[in-house]
Amino acid sequence: MELMEKRIAEQGRVLPGDILKVDSFLNHQIDVPLLSAAGEEFYNAYRACKVNKILTIEASGIGIACLTARFFDCPVVFAKKKVGRNSDDEFFTSSCFSYTKMQTCEISVSKRYLSPEDRILLIDDFLAEGNALAALIDLANQAGAQVVGCGIVVEKAYQSGGERIRGMGYRVESLARIRSMSPEGGIVFCS
Amino acid sequence: MELMEKRIAEQGRVLPGDILKVDSFLNHQIDVPLLSAAGEEFYNAYRACKVNKILTIEASGIGIACLTARFFDCPVVFAKKKVGRNSDDEFFTSSCFSYTKMQTCEISVSKRYLSPEDRILLIDDFLAEGNALAALIDLANQAGAQVVGCGIVVEKAYQSGGERIRGMGYRVESLARIRSMSPEGGIVFCS
Repeated sequence: MELMEKRIAEQGRVLPGDILKVDSFLNHQIDVPLLSAAGEEFYNAYRACKVNKILTIEASGIGIACLTARFFDCPVVFAKKKVGRNSDDEFFTSSCFSYTKMQTCEISVSKRYLSPEDRILLIDDFLAEGNALAALIDLANQAGAQVVGCGIVVEKAYQSGGERIRGMGYRVESLARIRSMSPEGGIVFCS
Repeated sequence: MELMEKRIAEQGRVLPGDILKVDSFLNHQIDVPLLSAAGEEFYNAYRACKVNKILTIEASGIGIACLTARFFDCPVVFAKKKVGRNSDDEFFTSSCFSYTKMQTCEISVSKRYLSPEDRILLIDDFLAEGNALAALIDLANQAGAQVVGCGIVVEKAYQSGGERIRGMGYRVESLARIRSMSPEGGIVFCS
């Protein structure tokens, strides 16, 4: 998606430690028109797949998931990283390692909100090692739901996540795929 | 908003400890068409106020904020509860006590994303004691931004938050105001 690559090139900041900061439009401040356009891209990619639910993970995935769901006219479910005291329900749970936080976290979804009837599009902001996406797939599988594919805003294509998830047989559509990046060399996209 | 009260009456579950579970449509599963309609209500209430930014708090506020921002054609900024290792920025911070989690949490927004030029609409899912909203107002004030008002999905009108925030001189528009609720007696709305 040319518009997304352009924005990343203009506003993305590459920091030491393989960090790409895109918080001016994606995961702190949210550029709603841009992410609506991103949602439409995901819709165009998956419109034939009878998606009836979008599954994402708090917090950064929620905005893009909601703006995508408008096109599919379906609900969003977001996996939670912590289950609060308000929870009397039973949950599907899975664990994933977050490199951003350098810790393993449990994610969970109430059993009320995933079912074998669901045809799920997974949405997330980043794909790097694929840990979050693999955990979401695990949750969907536990529910007996069908994962029709994944919609990712930024894929770090030089990391193993894309290959891992595609190797599991899932379709992954990424709006921007980064071939390499460094504080000195900037950001290079896959052509 | 009749549609919202109806949905709360149909799907809200009142649990012991003054808990209203609305996670089938608001804060775990998200009914995107319903919350789009909610966003339009907020737009109708504040359309004359020259809102140029929506400020909310992760995670439950993000979906409704994004679906509201579409109508204002403005960005969303969400306050974070934890600052990750990706942060090299300076932050406005404020603290608030969460009754849901029974702990005080720090919330923060990068100084890059709030400024004196901002005319801010605050959006959140719940208003009870008003702690989260007061902390968001504090962040906006630190930035020298103008808060034009607040848009709340569910106000527990029998708690002090609404009076507190309105008493500070801020306009609060709530789509559903609950007069009383209990596991036995169900949910009664303000007429």
